[in-house]
Amino acid sequence: MQYGDVMKKVAIIGVGCSKFGVRNDVNVAELAFEAFKPSVEDAGITPKEIEFVAVGSTGAGAWYEELLPAVVSAEYCGLTGAGLIRCEAACASGSAAFSTAYWAVASGQVEIAAALGIEKMREIDTPTMMEWIGRAGYYLWEFHNFGLTFPAYYALYATAHMAKYGTTEEDLALVAVKNHKYASMNPIAHLQNRIIVDDVLSSMVIAAPLKLFDCCPVSDGAASVILASEDKVKELKVDTPVWVAGVGFASGTANMSKRLDYVGLEASVQASQKAYKMAKITPDQLDVAVVHDCFTIAEIMAYEDIGLCEKGEGAKLLREGQTEIGGKIPVNVDGGLKAKGHPIGTTGCAMIYELTKQLREEAIEKSRQVPMKNYIALAHNVGGTGHYCYVTILRR
Amino acid sequence: MQYGDVMKKVAIIGVGCSKFGVRNDVNVAELAFEAFKPSVEDAGITPKEIEFVAVGSTGAGAWYEELLPAVVSAEYCGLTGAGLIRCEAACASGSAAFSTAYWAVASGQVEIAAALGIEKMREIDTPTMMEWIGRAGYYLWEFHNFGLTFPAYYALYATAHMAKYGTTEEDLALVAVKNHKYASMNPIAHLQNRIIVDDVLSSMVIAAPLKLFDCCPVSDGAASVILASEDKVKELKVDTPVWVAGVGFASGTANMSKRLDYVGLEASVQASQKAYKMAKITPDQLDVAVVHDCFTIAEIMAYEDIGLCEKGEGAKLLREGQTEIGGKIPVNVDGGLKAKGHPIGTTGCAMIYELTKQLREEAIEKSRQVPMKNYIALAHNVGGTGHYCYVTILRR
Repeated sequence: MQYGDVMKKVAIIGVGCSKFGVRNDVNVAELAFEAFKPSVEDAGITPKEIEFVAVGSTGAGAWYEELLPAVVSAEYCGLTGAGLIRCEAACASGSAAFSTAYWAVASGQVEIAAALGIEKMREIDTPTMMEWIGRAGYYLWEFHNFGLTFPAYYALYATAHMAKYGTTEEDLALVAVKNHKYASMNPIAHLQNRIIVDDVLSSMVIAAPLKLFDCCPVSDGAASVILASEDKVKELKVDTPVWVAGVGFASGTANMSKRLDYVGLEASVQASQKAYKMAKITPDQLDVAVVHDCFTIAEIMAYEDIGLCEKGEGAKLLREGQTEIGGKIPVNVDGGLKAKGHPIGTTGCAMIYELTKQLREEAIEKSRQVPMKNYIALAHNVGGTGHYCYVTILRR
Repeated sequence: MQYGDVMKKVAIIGVGCSKFGVRNDVNVAELAFEAFKPSVEDAGITPKEIEFVAVGSTGAGAWYEELLPAVVSAEYCGLTGAGLIRCEAACASGSAAFSTAYWAVASGQVEIAAALGIEKMREIDTPTMMEWIGRAGYYLWEFHNFGLTFPAYYALYATAHMAKYGTTEEDLALVAVKNHKYASMNPIAHLQNRIIVDDVLSSMVIAAPLKLFDCCPVSDGAASVILASEDKVKELKVDTPVWVAGVGFASGTANMSKRLDYVGLEASVQASQKAYKMAKITPDQLDVAVVHDCFTIAEIMAYEDIGLCEKGEGAKLLREGQTEIGGKIPVNVDGGLKAKGHPIGTTGCAMIYELTKQLREEAIEKSRQVPMKNYIALAHNVGGTGHYCYVTILRR
């Protein structure tokens, strides 16, 4: 047996995603239901057929009030009775939940499982979300002693990438411009305004060289994915199953002074290589990708780390328009974290939602449909600054 | 395929457990290492051979300072690079982590995985642990509106059980007396004092009929379990692999008013039945069990829910001494949550630690070694008041 020599095939048979944004109109369970309901309808099953539910959520009890959100959300969705777990891998919690649900099916433990990403970050009567996000590196060392916060971490990376490879502030801005463009075509996106490079450059400096428009927004949102075994796919006569072809994961040091360099994330490299190996494909076979663009520099580093281009050539790939629809490998055509939004524990499941729709060629907004050749897609989801990374490869 | 028709066999090849108690001498990563180091030595492997780590922890950022404890703990244990996830299922978080690590191996995704339970609950400079535990039911409904806390939930169950089956306060006290007796023989237990029935009956009332000595303590502690595929077990020439024979799970409503009755936990019934089915055994084949005795009434209900006796006969089983060593089915001979202690996210892994030692007949304290006949053991771990339940059956 080798890494990823998984015994059972698993397919995605249903997906759903809520509107992202400031969602003070719903509590966390209601938000979960908004994503879950269309996913079971899509799958053509009832909630009672789901034997296991993995919930991705990071800020339970911290930036929203429920300490056990999996319980109340599953109950509101009619899932009480099913096996239940909450998965946390910082901003990759949604992918951690997806992977756990995948293994529950791939192992033969259950026939149908759900991965449910939920996060509410915009409530104001819970401990401040900003302090908690600041804590989410290595609290006792970096946050407590030096005051490093997430924009500052990524600013270190941006500065290093600019110094070593000549990446410019305008290049960073181009990521934001592209992702806002696609978000403007995506009615569930948080930020649907189109912007130009000057909007980014003239926005408030957050942590130089990163400005406000280089940062993703703080969003509420939920996404749901239903997975089934090959036997169940046949039994249910699923029209267009989307198969899980590769899952890769890795972790990185939480001590920034131990990182080898600041121009890429080693965890992204390791996780993507594992996923490619398991899927038995190379990056040039991908039709579409979603990558973790919590800050604009993160998207450029991701291009390089997951092998869409050589190291240091991310900005060039972007400038040439190769990551837009019509280019070599369209990236984040749902608006990405940058403009669709980034409800932390939801993002991984929302990525799978987007790719499933793309692979089925049923992107609701036809203008965002990527032309398919090999019907292979990749999701890249980072937790922290490469503290965690999960890469998932899907194949129709 | 049927439920639990898992394709690959998985064994436990190494276990470790820290001293439980008030552990202000260590931070969470150091506490994790105290459990992890003996587990890798036991397994005869190096940390770098571990491809995936599932960390069980509930109170990250709430009752101890690290919001991403998996990252810093894994790093301190030399596990950086491995796939990483934190699992939460309230007080069953350790079992959720164990199950996730199990599926990662059972699916073929990896050959060696670790489940690491860690919890620090006795720190005083983080938001008060008591408020968070109070929140951990259904915050918006029960805690916020009615002020129900965990002792109050279990007091409802105790009252109902006493009313319906004639269970007495003395019966409840006998659970505490038994578990303190075994904890007194267990050097890593939190509470090592022997007590008598009168000590329990005369202790302070917490939520009638539950008194202080009916409640488990609030503890710090960590436990580690290393799992490997059958191929790897052969390759490593493991002396005494302990096989995972059954995994069952279920969830229950978070709305107490929707529970059918208050004399047992439906999730425990469902989870144990699934585990027995997967392991193809009946309860009378068990040699030893650990059950979730967060309150004394919980142990009596567990006897009944997992089928060690008929419903309503839990107190009788206890009175007859059948759950002591020498009896029909010894239960919680490590001292249980009640006296060994209950670091929430750790407990599930600590249960597996104890059962592995028992099945290998290497219980360090020989006085606590249960005589083996079938070499089959069961762990029962509840989250909340049956919001979650995980049952694991091990077989040598």
